[in-house]
Amino acid sequence: MEKENNILVNAVNREVPRFVNGLKVIPYKGVNKHKPEGYKHAPRIPTCVDFPSDGNKQVSNLKDALIKSGLKDGMTISTHHHFRNGDLIANQVFKIASEFGIKDLIWFPSASFECHSELIKYLDNGTIHHIEGSLNGTLGRYVSQGKMKGLGVLRSHGGRYQAVQDGEVKIDIAVIAAPTADAFGNANGVNGPSACGLLGFALADSQYSNKVIVVTDHLIPFPCLPWQIQGNYVDFVVEVDKIGIPEKILSGTTAITKSPDRLFLAKLTAQFCDQVGIIKNGFSFQAGAGGTSLAVGYYFAEIMKRKGIKARFARGGSNKFLVDMLNKGLVEFILDGQTFDLNGVDSMRKNPNHVDTSPFTSYNFHGKGNFAQLVDVVVLGATEVDVNFNGNVVTHSDGLLLHGLGGWQNCLFSKCTILPIPLFRDRIPVIKDQVTTICGPGELIDVIITERGIAINPLRTDLIEQTKGLGLPIKTIYELKEEAERICGVPQKPKFQDEVVAVIKWVDGTVIDVVKKIIE
Amino acid sequence: MEKENNILVNAVNREVPRFVNGLKVIPYKGVNKHKPEGYKHAPRIPTCVDFPSDGNKQVSNLKDALIKSGLKDGMTISTHHHFRNGDLIANQVFKIASEFGIKDLIWFPSASFECHSELIKYLDNGTIHHIEGSLNGTLGRYVSQGKMKGLGVLRSHGGRYQAVQDGEVKIDIAVIAAPTADAFGNANGVNGPSACGLLGFALADSQYSNKVIVVTDHLIPFPCLPWQIQGNYVDFVVEVDKIGIPEKILSGTTAITKSPDRLFLAKLTAQFCDQVGIIKNGFSFQAGAGGTSLAVGYYFAEIMKRKGIKARFARGGSNKFLVDMLNKGLVEFILDGQTFDLNGVDSMRKNPNHVDTSPFTSYNFHGKGNFAQLVDVVVLGATEVDVNFNGNVVTHSDGLLLHGLGGWQNCLFSKCTILPIPLFRDRIPVIKDQVTTICGPGELIDVIITERGIAINPLRTDLIEQTKGLGLPIKTIYELKEEAERICGVPQKPKFQDEVVAVIKWVDGTVIDVVKKIIE
Repeated sequence: MEKENNILVNAVNREVPRFVNGLKVIPYKGVNKHKPEGYKHAPRIPTCVDFPSDGNKQVSNLKDALIKSGLKDGMTISTHHHFRNGDLIANQVFKIASEFGIKDLIWFPSASFECHSELIKYLDNGTIHHIEGSLNGTLGRYVSQGKMKGLGVLRSHGGRYQAVQDGEVKIDIAVIAAPTADAFGNANGVNGPSACGLLGFALADSQYSNKVIVVTDHLIPFPCLPWQIQGNYVDFVVEVDKIGIPEKILSGTTAITKSPDRLFLAKLTAQFCDQVGIIKNGFSFQAGAGGTSLAVGYYFAEIMKRKGIKARFARGGSNKFLVDMLNKGLVEFILDGQTFDLNGVDSMRKNPNHVDTSPFTSYNFHGKGNFAQLVDVVVLGATEVDVNFNGNVVTHSDGLLLHGLGGWQNCLFSKCTILPIPLFRDRIPVIKDQVTTICGPGELIDVIITERGIAINPLRTDLIEQTKGLGLPIKTIYELKEEAERICGVPQKPKFQDEVVAVIKWVDGTVIDVVKKIIE
Repeated sequence: MEKENNILVNAVNREVPRFVNGLKVIPYKGVNKHKPEGYKHAPRIPTCVDFPSDGNKQVSNLKDALIKSGLKDGMTISTHHHFRNGDLIANQVFKIASEFGIKDLIWFPSASFECHSELIKYLDNGTIHHIEGSLNGTLGRYVSQGKMKGLGVLRSHGGRYQAVQDGEVKIDIAVIAAPTADAFGNANGVNGPSACGLLGFALADSQYSNKVIVVTDHLIPFPCLPWQIQGNYVDFVVEVDKIGIPEKILSGTTAITKSPDRLFLAKLTAQFCDQVGIIKNGFSFQAGAGGTSLAVGYYFAEIMKRKGIKARFARGGSNKFLVDMLNKGLVEFILDGQTFDLNGVDSMRKNPNHVDTSPFTSYNFHGKGNFAQLVDVVVLGATEVDVNFNGNVVTHSDGLLLHGLGGWQNCLFSKCTILPIPLFRDRIPVIKDQVTTICGPGELIDVIITERGIAINPLRTDLIEQTKGLGLPIKTIYELKEEAERICGVPQKPKFQDEVVAVIKWVDGTVIDVVKKIIE
């Protein structure tokens, strides 16, 4: 529906701009409502004629590689985030570009972290026009304040693959930091002094970018095995002193929460899954890396041990707790998208049942299916949910854009999506009439578990039926909301200007919501 | 150069038609002379909306899968040849098509074998219009006799990937026989009762075909690991009783030749490689599966043991002899394209240093390099060579088309290509003034080793220099040819009609030669 000039209203009643960074927007149409037309992005056909006959693609440094790749104004440059807050490469790329006086680049990371706040100076000086990718912490605040020239475009991990595959984002130069590589460009994340586990987030970049630069601090003779990135897609290989700080890949907390409230939440989540029959022999699950999620995994393990059953597979983000379950035979396989600690890296290196996956296999909505939909239960977080079960993960209750989407949207397609969330944070209720930013539509969110009760989505009549008589504290979402508001009062809504500073893409490339400039 | 209407003369002075099966031909221009323009083939963008939400893509049988895939007249249907002469699926596909009265299909196998001579009845009854792929034995003879409606198109393994990637061949339905698969379509060749090793020859088919059917006789719960074929590319999964007879994957002979002449050839080849310094620590090699090639491997191993050195990698076709070298530490890695016996299958399953590769990584000339060019020495066969070092592998001295190209053309890009060949076969000299069919241009063939002397390509002045004073029996190719003709007489040339029955593609998609209808 068109509202007025250049504003459209989408299927969840959010106003979205007709154009984002000059490109036409398809407004969100509803779950499974938008079908893509057309063909995958077709990269230019390369030829061996243009590559060294001995296969040695090494160039002396990153600057040379960028020059040979034809770095110029307006290009889209991608990097991956497997080093998370320990990435040493992305900042270097834009430092070089800035020194060359290059302008208006688009940075297309698979995610950004606090270490990338250094890039603000290149946003300020015009080297970078805008960022398409998660906007965390300082960078997110910068965008929320309306300081970025272009609009931020937030995509899920699967949505990023989809956008590259479908040609919505055409990467000119992909810079892939690789813990091990050979001079042909075969690369992996599992070996070498900077091992970060895997390189799945750079897969689309390698397949579809015009130029691909592998940067490594551990160059070995051909063949580099496993070749998580295939040298046949790579143009240049650069050896540097250090590509990243693997100790900083740590995500969230690595300790199970000690908060009695959070522990209760986790236990209730596990109990719910057990009682409705989700935890059974051969089931599958995915939980995140936060303290509550770790605790959920802990309680899952306890139940499985008690019942003498095992899971067929667990999806990672892997960490020491999941690795422990693999080693103890409680899960047969970890299908891992990123390692959240060094135990995860080590396990992936050594255990053939700890398997690296990619956003293509796990999350791409424009594939012939993906793994996320095969998972029996996924336990996720949210900054806000609303009475229609819509979820928000990118903005805080103060309206600031502080997080990326990660794989959150993609995981909603599991057979059962559960959000264990505290009823309030810092005395601000988490359940709203309307979430500030709709990141996931309510029809895909099945259960909200709080410390004061469980709300089941009315669409899941099966779950509502199954829980009858089990003694679980089932309430309506309205009851939970009112309970929180009785305690904390009705929270004030954040105040925004009209200016859109970022858009939230749905898994199919449509725009589900926007983030507006904050009034501080 | 255009000769007359619809006939072009290419860079090796062979006449090629302007059109093949209605498509325009690019005549061969010389090694590294043709650069592709344009973009890779872009398959239609799929969406999860069109696939089962639980990921279960199983349909009841192959017939249903073909119907659901939209089987109709004129389509291109592909299969892989990892079962070699034990394939049970390709014949079934065309039996079903014939029963439906479908006409004018193009069969696009990665190779054909004697077991596929059954397809002649579907060529005869119009179900199949023509075959693009290797034409061995009975099928080749059928084509040589001018009985196939369309023209045969022979491509190397790398050329087949190139043709699919570049959109020269658009596969409508790929049927992938898979020794193990899950209902999502993940599949491998390494496990299950019909294990054939790997499925690399079906990679392009999975990536680029419109519809992909996985047929398996070993369906396991998700996840099927390793996923050599990724279910995200797969439309339908079919379970059947038996997909192939793995015992029939045996290629060539599995015993080292006992012929004193062949043993001498092999020993001389190994001695040559040793004396010119090719066999050194960390080198790499590829040899084929014939008795002479096995003997070359044997002598390589002897030299390496004596010198106390090891190879960094060997390229397979793997067999028990190569596996033995891996197990004894004489080679660090086998990079394998197809397993030639069950020892190869078993080793690939168990040994992480026995790695499956694909025509994309190993051979695709329209990639950013490929592995073939990294190999130090490759030892290949030929049916004929000529005084310009051109090689023929597809037609016999009687002019009949009896073999496919395999990876032969692709391997010519190694650092040193050696053809150990007998000076004559059945009293017919193997060295000609001109080969019947040019499959590989002489400039890529470095050394021809016969039982009566070694001819080094005059272009390899470095090798000529290196061999001086080593006591090797170096002769000119003319001397070798004359010696053979002194013994056997000058052979008669095969007689052909003007009608072209098949064309030989070069690795870059251009046409290097044709095969004409035989006069019997």
